[in-house]
Amino acid sequence: MRRIATVFTMAAVLLLAAACCKDNAPVQKSALDVIKARTSIRAFTGEKLTEEQINTLLGAAMAAPTAADVRPWRFVVITDDDVKAGLYEGERHKKMVVDAGAVIIVCGETTRMVKPHGAEADAEPVPRPNGYWYEDCSAATENMLLAATALDLGAVWLSCYPNEKSVERISAYLGLPANVTPLAIVPVGVPAENPEPKDKWNPDNIHYNKW
Amino acid sequence: MRRIATVFTMAAVLLLAAACCKDNAPVQKSALDVIKARTSIRAFTGEKLTEEQINTLLGAAMAAPTAADVRPWRFVVITDDDVKAGLYEGERHKKMVVDAGAVIIVCGETTRMVKPHGAEADAEPVPRPNGYWYEDCSAATENMLLAATALDLGAVWLSCYPNEKSVERISAYLGLPANVTPLAIVPVGVPAENPEPKDKWNPDNIHYNKW
Repeated sequence: MRRIATVFTMAAVLLLAAACCKDNAPVQKSALDVIKARTSIRAFTGEKLTEEQINTLLGAAMAAPTAADVRPWRFVVITDDDVKAGLYEGERHKKMVVDAGAVIIVCGETTRMVKPHGAEADAEPVPRPNGYWYEDCSAATENMLLAATALDLGAVWLSCYPNEKSVERISAYLGLPANVTPLAIVPVGVPAENPEPKDKWNPDNIHYNKW
Repeated sequence: MRRIATVFTMAAVLLLAAACCKDNAPVQKSALDVIKARTSIRAFTGEKLTEEQINTLLGAAMAAPTAADVRPWRFVVITDDDVKAGLYEGERHKKMVVDAGAVIIVCGETTRMVKPHGAEADAEPVPRPNGYWYEDCSAATENMLLAATALDLGAVWLSCYPNEKSVERISAYLGLPANVTPLAIVPVGVPAENPEPKDKWNPDNIHYNKW
């Protein structure tokens, strides 16, 4: 009888310990691991994303730093299959974007309307170009790719700006205002491929104190 | 005697469970938490960084994606206090960079020497501009800022490119080659301040399917 009680007690202790372990276990992948694991995913299962997944991706993008805290990012989230299909002419890209759960176009406000420095309260706003919009929006895009990896999704950064033809085509297709430019086209979804991330470490790229 | 044995057995089981928990516990911060927690740190304790910390930061930078896999990033890591002190004239920036454990200048190769398409094996390389270097290097800079946060360090992205005066001054100071341009100046070190990260979520920035 005593032996049975001991076995039960030990089993209870083990279950408790296991439950404690589970609570402490990482529920999300670590940042350094995600940075290393992120790689371009160009094939997707066709599964849709949830609203929560899309908002997590956009929230990560909007957590990036921006010059003078201007936050020039704007996003067009394409979930409609017909709208996705019209993004590209070529078959390879067309399949990629249609199979993605969503295609997020990261755009930037290139010129803001602001009141001149020291102007009267009722002064007319004037256009002020933002020279850093593409750097800010690139950081936001990278955050989004990392968030996708953290969510076990895949994504790829397809370039748009500064290719003039791509910028013109995408701006017209999405009906962007004149002061908003598309920087990157990011299909994101459930991966249908599992490529090894590249090891791009190269000490030749590093100089100490002066070049 | 049997009771003592039982107590010892249970103690051993508990210790084992605790050890197992420790192994499973997150040793690094999660990616989504780090993305949210990253904020600009502009005050540092003066503590130096270890070689391992610096290499983790540079490894994270070199894990970013680049257009056509060109990997245009180049880094100048400044750890020498005199070299740091010469980066800025103004007192505020001077104190910031001198107190940082290191200042990492993220640069980009703007033009590569490549053989023309379909050229003979002994053809002379010709310069080919890389239109995406600043986007690639911005993604690398963001990875570095996130890695700093993951390592419990602080960092700030001080802008350089495309400000012509800053680019000229920093290029001359570091002795950069003509085809390498400094994009960002990143002081990184042990934080001497603990500001709250900003919540920059704004649904007005999001459009669905078309603008």
